[in-house]
Amino acid sequence: MTYRAPVRDIRFALEEIAAMDGLTATGGFPEFSSDLTPAILDEAAKLANDVLAPLNWAGDQSGCVLEGGAVTTPPGFKDAYAQFVEGGWQGLQFPADAGGMGLPKGLGCALMEMLQSSNMAFGLGPMLSFGAIEALIEVGTQDQRALYLPKLISGEWTATMNLTEPQAGSDVGALRTKAEPNPDGSWAITGQKIYITWGEHDCADNIVHLVLARTPDGAPGTKGISLFLVPKFLPDAAGEPDERNRVTAIGLEHKLGIHGSPTCTMEYDKATGWLLGEEFKGMAGMFIMMNSARLNVGVQGVGIAERAYQQALAFAKERKQGRAVNAEGPGPHAIIDHPDVRRMLAMMKAKTEAARAICFHAAVEADLALSHEDEEERAWSKRREDLLIPIAKAWSTDVGVEVASLGVQVHGGMGFVEETGAAQHYRDARITPIYEGTNGIQAIDLVGRKLARDGGHALRELIEDVRQTAEDCETSSNPELPFLAEWLNPAADALEAASNWMLQADDADRLAGATSYLKLAGDVAGGWLLCVGAVAAQRMLKDQVGEDAYARSKIALARVYAETVLSSAPGLLGDIKIGAEPLFAPGEIMLESA
Amino acid sequence: MTYRAPVRDIRFALEEIAAMDGLTATGGFPEFSSDLTPAILDEAAKLANDVLAPLNWAGDQSGCVLEGGAVTTPPGFKDAYAQFVEGGWQGLQFPADAGGMGLPKGLGCALMEMLQSSNMAFGLGPMLSFGAIEALIEVGTQDQRALYLPKLISGEWTATMNLTEPQAGSDVGALRTKAEPNPDGSWAITGQKIYITWGEHDCADNIVHLVLARTPDGAPGTKGISLFLVPKFLPDAAGEPDERNRVTAIGLEHKLGIHGSPTCTMEYDKATGWLLGEEFKGMAGMFIMMNSARLNVGVQGVGIAERAYQQALAFAKERKQGRAVNAEGPGPHAIIDHPDVRRMLAMMKAKTEAARAICFHAAVEADLALSHEDEEERAWSKRREDLLIPIAKAWSTDVGVEVASLGVQVHGGMGFVEETGAAQHYRDARITPIYEGTNGIQAIDLVGRKLARDGGHALRELIEDVRQTAEDCETSSNPELPFLAEWLNPAADALEAASNWMLQADDADRLAGATSYLKLAGDVAGGWLLCVGAVAAQRMLKDQVGEDAYARSKIALARVYAETVLSSAPGLLGDIKIGAEPLFAPGEIMLESA
Repeated sequence: MTYRAPVRDIRFALEEIAAMDGLTATGGFPEFSSDLTPAILDEAAKLANDVLAPLNWAGDQSGCVLEGGAVTTPPGFKDAYAQFVEGGWQGLQFPADAGGMGLPKGLGCALMEMLQSSNMAFGLGPMLSFGAIEALIEVGTQDQRALYLPKLISGEWTATMNLTEPQAGSDVGALRTKAEPNPDGSWAITGQKIYITWGEHDCADNIVHLVLARTPDGAPGTKGISLFLVPKFLPDAAGEPDERNRVTAIGLEHKLGIHGSPTCTMEYDKATGWLLGEEFKGMAGMFIMMNSARLNVGVQGVGIAERAYQQALAFAKERKQGRAVNAEGPGPHAIIDHPDVRRMLAMMKAKTEAARAICFHAAVEADLALSHEDEEERAWSKRREDLLIPIAKAWSTDVGVEVASLGVQVHGGMGFVEETGAAQHYRDARITPIYEGTNGIQAIDLVGRKLARDGGHALRELIEDVRQTAEDCETSSNPELPFLAEWLNPAADALEAASNWMLQADDADRLAGATSYLKLAGDVAGGWLLCVGAVAAQRMLKDQVGEDAYARSKIALARVYAETVLSSAPGLLGDIKIGAEPLFAPGEIMLESA
Repeated sequence: MTYRAPVRDIRFALEEIAAMDGLTATGGFPEFSSDLTPAILDEAAKLANDVLAPLNWAGDQSGCVLEGGAVTTPPGFKDAYAQFVEGGWQGLQFPADAGGMGLPKGLGCALMEMLQSSNMAFGLGPMLSFGAIEALIEVGTQDQRALYLPKLISGEWTATMNLTEPQAGSDVGALRTKAEPNPDGSWAITGQKIYITWGEHDCADNIVHLVLARTPDGAPGTKGISLFLVPKFLPDAAGEPDERNRVTAIGLEHKLGIHGSPTCTMEYDKATGWLLGEEFKGMAGMFIMMNSARLNVGVQGVGIAERAYQQALAFAKERKQGRAVNAEGPGPHAIIDHPDVRRMLAMMKAKTEAARAICFHAAVEADLALSHEDEEERAWSKRREDLLIPIAKAWSTDVGVEVASLGVQVHGGMGFVEETGAAQHYRDARITPIYEGTNGIQAIDLVGRKLARDGGHALRELIEDVRQTAEDCETSSNPELPFLAEWLNPAADALEAASNWMLQADDADRLAGATSYLKLAGDVAGGWLLCVGAVAAQRMLKDQVGEDAYARSKIALARVYAETVLSSAPGLLGDIKIGAEPLFAPGEIMLESA
């Protein structure tokens, strides 16, 4: 159950695929230079490999305990969190003038992947703080930023996101938590929030809850919602935790996975809070957190897939069963020598790297959208980021579940035994397609907003890039690369056809095919980026940069992906174009059992 | 978390799709008549709905306890088992002269589905006994049958299947358990077996272990293996449990799911056993059990999918969120009115019914293979049964996992909370692609034996049937049916092309594509059988038999399946034909993380 952060693969994805080094030219990240990347990644890897990974399985087994409103996290989490704070990791991607390291989100995602791979339950704490810090930077007042940012960016305090209520899940607008004005300008928050990740714990001195609530004048629905900042301990004049606020963890969920992450029911009983951003603009603040979280949940998918893959690979090399048809000697051979097992592992690896490439590409474009000196370039990057966010979230988390499930399968009977650890990944992974907007919600966002709002412009830009890469493969001096284009071009055609169909479809038809459309978009985007990697690898071979074997592995991986995933892309069109009628007209499909 | 056995759907699959009533003409089942079917199914449904289903979640939570070699099953299991025995259900499909009901395996599978849906952990006990009884009938001596069959068929005693050892999983031939002759003709069995389902429990008076072991003259590998019958209590002269045998449960696995099913490590310490079948022919006896178990594990896939579907459907009708685009009024609407959720439910239903149809078709052909008066017909049915077994096992269990995962997804955040119960199905389902031969082993069986041994004959017979059904759809008076043929024909073409490729491929290439080939075969077979159902439904509409709405639902379901699953069939060819070279030649794909 060991984990070793795949630093080389992460660098390859950041530098060769997502072209992170381009950020040095923008001037937006004065603290960043290319030669910093390996040092940062190696340090993060130490934390992940040596501190967090060893706590993962034990944390799953022990879980969290709630007693008298206080949550105790699993053994070792508190110390590990102290080391996380000590390293300054919470501030990695935040401006140096606010106490951060001022590094790009691309590197932030790389760190995030290692946190989630090594210990997803632990990694959720920092992940939620990341989002809250972004919201605070963007919509907080000067005073709020001065008071809260240093503590949050250092990691001394953590933060949470409070949206969901029992009757308000995907429909956030149905929330009932209310905020009433106090004479001193603060607000009294009253209501119950559920599924609050790291809502209460013993790792930090204070917890800053970002809470959606409705003010007395707030209209029904999302338009009347405001965002509030509600600290567990009210800061005193010096900014230190003082009076205990009237917010309490009253329940802990008994969950399928991520047992080490305390998922709390929070009770606000006239808790003191402060408006964060404008009244009635709560959704805007929430979307800042949400967009940060969506990308990072996609990265969780990558992280859990990587971990499951590493574990399955180690097992498959160790475990011997039977005679493998194309291995030497009489056997027994390691099961990795059996073609069916090898196929599973190759697909796990290919999909994991495709998901990583999509997430890192989105992150670097987010960095460029903020930092590029050219306005048109910023706009281009913003369009790409926005388009990719729902794909990065949904596709990568579906991959996380699929790869974790394959990981169990590679283990055979031992995969079903909890002690092996493969089962934990299968359990942990299952939340990722659900939270921060279910994958169905992501698909609706993709077809309803991201595709339709600009008449397919951003999507067509993506397809242009795919075709360019196909051309790069076709014209490559390496005879293996034109083969990739044979799969990439029809896949791009399918995505274009599906997009055109979506753009002319009515709402119900578009929504009926949304999830399958997102799958196609992810399949194509992932394949495209692996081919970008293959082109880069060929360049490395030609220029004699790095190890040949490593470069060749990236070309081989793109080929496996092309033959197993891109090959199926055109076949998804029927499913995408099903339309609502076959699902709704014959209402009898879903007759009650009788 | 209630469950209602889908008696109407089960009858439709048995009678309209698998044509079980044809068995009455064979004379092989004198106890069976068509009008018996509803009575049997209704009685079985009562046991499942009222006795077993309510114990399912509590059994998962409490699990089994091993103390001093004795296992205590979850509260209620012992009483429930007594009711199972009382109803004579263990004997349903066994000959009347051996104390059974003498009914077809088709009905046996229907019962099995209800047991597995209502309580998979419980259902595993009877399932293992089923297989052992079949082996005993086929290879037991007269005395062995006289001594053990009545107790096993009544259910007073249960039975187990002991194959796996730590070093011998998929590679059964690597086992080390030894059998040494005793002077009285019995054997002394010594060794350790793992993953023994219901290896020890408190529900029955005796447990009959069927154990694979090697005799002193046994060659290495599978050829030297023999099968032994090792009862927990040695029967006395009157056949009643007497002296305790030297077989002990020394461990219980801590598993991802089926917590209510005791999965034991069994220690045999010179335990007394008797040869079952001939020496060195242990694999033959094992395959009898295994084939029974493989079909029944496929039925488990159906059962868990049905349960997960029912639970998700009930939730989706109850849970209200947001405004659905094509529903009336301002909302909030039930989430089933949202196209994306409805698509998930429709796919769950369609795949569940397709898997059921495949399993029941295999079961009825197994009945015909034994009972048809015409030898050629028997041979045809045997070929079809053999061809379908690996598909029924692997495809249905993959569907079970997929549908259970969709069931969690439909529940949103509540799906990840254990109390909801959806997560249990996701955990329970995960073992089914692993045990009784992993799905990879099934795929190897399909391409290596079932397809290749007769040069594709049985597979071509299946494709002929698919084409015939497509023609039936094309020529139907119902204008909705020709549409189905538009999807069915290209899918059949794809299966034919893939089969032809497989038949000329070398071993390694065939094995590299085996799993994807099995998926295609299952996708096509499932779609074909739903179309058979649609043709039957059209006949019912025309003849005014039964409820119109019900018949129409079967046509609608076939359409959803055709558009979402059959539509992708041709796209699987690339994946199937990948060959071993891209997986093996660039050995660097699976470089260690660095």
